[in-house]
Amino acid sequence: MEQQILVHRLPGGLVLLGEPMPWLRTVACTFMLPAGTCCEPEGKEGLAGAVMEMIERGCGDLDSRAYMEVLDALGVETGSAVMTTHSTFGAVMRSDVLPEALHLLGQALCDPTLPADQVEDVRQICMQELRGLEDEPSHRCFTELKRFRFSHPYGRIAQGTREGIESIQHVDIVDFHRRHFSPGGTVLAVAGNFEWKRLCDLVEELFGGWRGEAQSELSPVQVNYGSRHVDFASSQTHLALAYDCPAYGDAEYYPSRAVVGVLSDGMSSRLFTEVREKRGLVYSVLATCYSIRDRGSVLCYAGTTANRAEETLEVLLQTIDSIAQGVSPGELERLKFRIKSSMVFEQESSRARSRQIANDWCVLGRVPTQREVLAEIDRLTCESVREHFLRYRPRAFSLVSVGSEPLELPVGADHT
Amino acid sequence: MEQQILVHRLPGGLVLLGEPMPWLRTVACTFMLPAGTCCEPEGKEGLAGAVMEMIERGCGDLDSRAYMEVLDALGVETGSAVMTTHSTFGAVMRSDVLPEALHLLGQALCDPTLPADQVEDVRQICMQELRGLEDEPSHRCFTELKRFRFSHPYGRIAQGTREGIESIQHVDIVDFHRRHFSPGGTVLAVAGNFEWKRLCDLVEELFGGWRGEAQSELSPVQVNYGSRHVDFASSQTHLALAYDCPAYGDAEYYPSRAVVGVLSDGMSSRLFTEVREKRGLVYSVLATCYSIRDRGSVLCYAGTTANRAEETLEVLLQTIDSIAQGVSPGELERLKFRIKSSMVFEQESSRARSRQIANDWCVLGRVPTQREVLAEIDRLTCESVREHFLRYRPRAFSLVSVGSEPLELPVGADHT
Repeated sequence: MEQQILVHRLPGGLVLLGEPMPWLRTVACTFMLPAGTCCEPEGKEGLAGAVMEMIERGCGDLDSRAYMEVLDALGVETGSAVMTTHSTFGAVMRSDVLPEALHLLGQALCDPTLPADQVEDVRQICMQELRGLEDEPSHRCFTELKRFRFSHPYGRIAQGTREGIESIQHVDIVDFHRRHFSPGGTVLAVAGNFEWKRLCDLVEELFGGWRGEAQSELSPVQVNYGSRHVDFASSQTHLALAYDCPAYGDAEYYPSRAVVGVLSDGMSSRLFTEVREKRGLVYSVLATCYSIRDRGSVLCYAGTTANRAEETLEVLLQTIDSIAQGVSPGELERLKFRIKSSMVFEQESSRARSRQIANDWCVLGRVPTQREVLAEIDRLTCESVREHFLRYRPRAFSLVSVGSEPLELPVGADHT
Repeated sequence: MEQQILVHRLPGGLVLLGEPMPWLRTVACTFMLPAGTCCEPEGKEGLAGAVMEMIERGCGDLDSRAYMEVLDALGVETGSAVMTTHSTFGAVMRSDVLPEALHLLGQALCDPTLPADQVEDVRQICMQELRGLEDEPSHRCFTELKRFRFSHPYGRIAQGTREGIESIQHVDIVDFHRRHFSPGGTVLAVAGNFEWKRLCDLVEELFGGWRGEAQSELSPVQVNYGSRHVDFASSQTHLALAYDCPAYGDAEYYPSRAVVGVLSDGMSSRLFTEVREKRGLVYSVLATCYSIRDRGSVLCYAGTTANRAEETLEVLLQTIDSIAQGVSPGELERLKFRIKSSMVFEQESSRARSRQIANDWCVLGRVPTQREVLAEIDRLTCESVREHFLRYRPRAFSLVSVGSEPLELPVGADHT
């Protein structure tokens, strides 16, 4: 069946996207709102996450308990994520319960109670999440990398700061919700088994009257290079490394994605081979593309013994730079086939598709079909990937090490 | 479409299971082998994991590199897991590449090269994985709980021990593979889009000549109660708690699963409500059923601030015991609907189904259909769940705390 991406715009600004997957019996919906950490007021770091907690503490006529009971009674699995420019709130369910579930999720978004007497509990939970992060060095090196690499306010992390969480008042929550949970700039992406006409009617009925102010302008994203160390009592060193690349949506994105694929997709990828298989330096190593607005980064992770951290960083940097010598036809063929397979896998997950199309709309203002993406992938050649790499050859890096001994970038690689 | 579970036995003892899911375009296969940690010789803890690493280092005519390249070229995602009595090795793929992929996976299992010159690299990787675990207290409290709670050799963990990994020789790997990677007691479970007759022919062709000795007898599983503390520099305390319950396969399993569901499934569950929502003690809390052979356990986890650890343990124990006062009709209805929904979700994942049917066969000697499981769930009443709980009322616990201060079970709850 030919993939369809359906679009319906509501008067208040909400965009409804639909991708029918009639071979499934589930449906997933994702609200993507312009309510990420970069919208938090100064000194209130952690507020976006606290608001996400609060909207599920009762809405419409339902108190917190009743809301959760109704969702559980429908067998709905909800989830939310706070990101940099946006936040998501979504659910996956049996397709027959979509109307009731969407009604409830809509109430939580548009008409939450935001009970003042639960702010303290939510603060405690946010604090627990932040403290939990401190105990997970493999995650923490990424959050510290984000803080270090990106200019204010883009370096903020979803978990916030102690000071920020401590200072959150009920009025901050109400205010953040009023400003940023608005239909302008918000997408509702539905993927799975549903009937489009009925869905449009339902969404019109539930969200037709939703109004709200638009998002304010954002400053450009800047990045910092160099090294930062976070002291952590351990025999391991966890390192997160980043370098610049074209962002998702850039005309040069796909060659850049191919470079990351050759480095990190699959067991025959270069990082897996050089860092793990040949040298046993790590149990896991990876590279991935990451974008904040028009700023693209390749992020790499490796966790190793403290006394092999320097060698690991060296091999990581050498392996990245080895792309300059070219990509073999076999590497590129394998990568293309892997990407095609992953698209087949994605077609069996309503959740994955609803997130993907929501993100596409927010970043690109449209949703490319899988056929379009495949055409981009098929167009890649060994020459075009190498030329791309040479044009964007990574020379300046941002490095964060978490462990008992600091790690430094080699001279020149820190852009100083 | 009515769910079908197909069975075909090969002369060497291998059992082939099939669950057709023709609405998918993927297929997943899981080999479940009687080659878990409890099969490791004394002093060689970590060997099962090392062998799993080694079998992917070349097989048949292919060296390590060629093997990985062929799998990547097919777009196959492989994965393995070392458990207590069994280990799994499997893959998910586009259904059109199943014949080539199964050929390759079969070679890795039955005819691996096990190259002596790669033992050292594999040892390093195993050591990295073990060290990585030391940095993840939320995982570590579970591995320490396993070590503490279960009698030898069932308390062994997949990551092994430093001494065990250090002592592994090439001959140990060859010997473990020869003894435990044998068709007797092994299941190959295939779920997704495939044609049964062709699959049987293919598996006959690939594995028809596979022979090997049967598994030796295992000792009974015993459990220990009481508390153990693991010192870890942190402001958090991670606690893992276990108590006895009927094992998977026991006639009383489903009421026991219902108790865990009321405690931990969904946002309206008792643990989520009491420990997280009302008191803000934790960011996450959970309970789950876990079986080793005929020994069932309920495992609980909570991570909290050190100074609230005692309160968290107290609320955890009280909430578990609150089931003695009964389960409400609403709780049971929600649970039933959630379980039914999760079965619909599972029908969209070839990987989940192939793992489930492999496990069912190894534990139960048969695969219950979803219809059978639903009948068991539907039979549950508030009375039957409460009566079950009172009959198996948890009085003795095993507790592990990971953090800077030890945590003790209340008097009486440690069975001393």
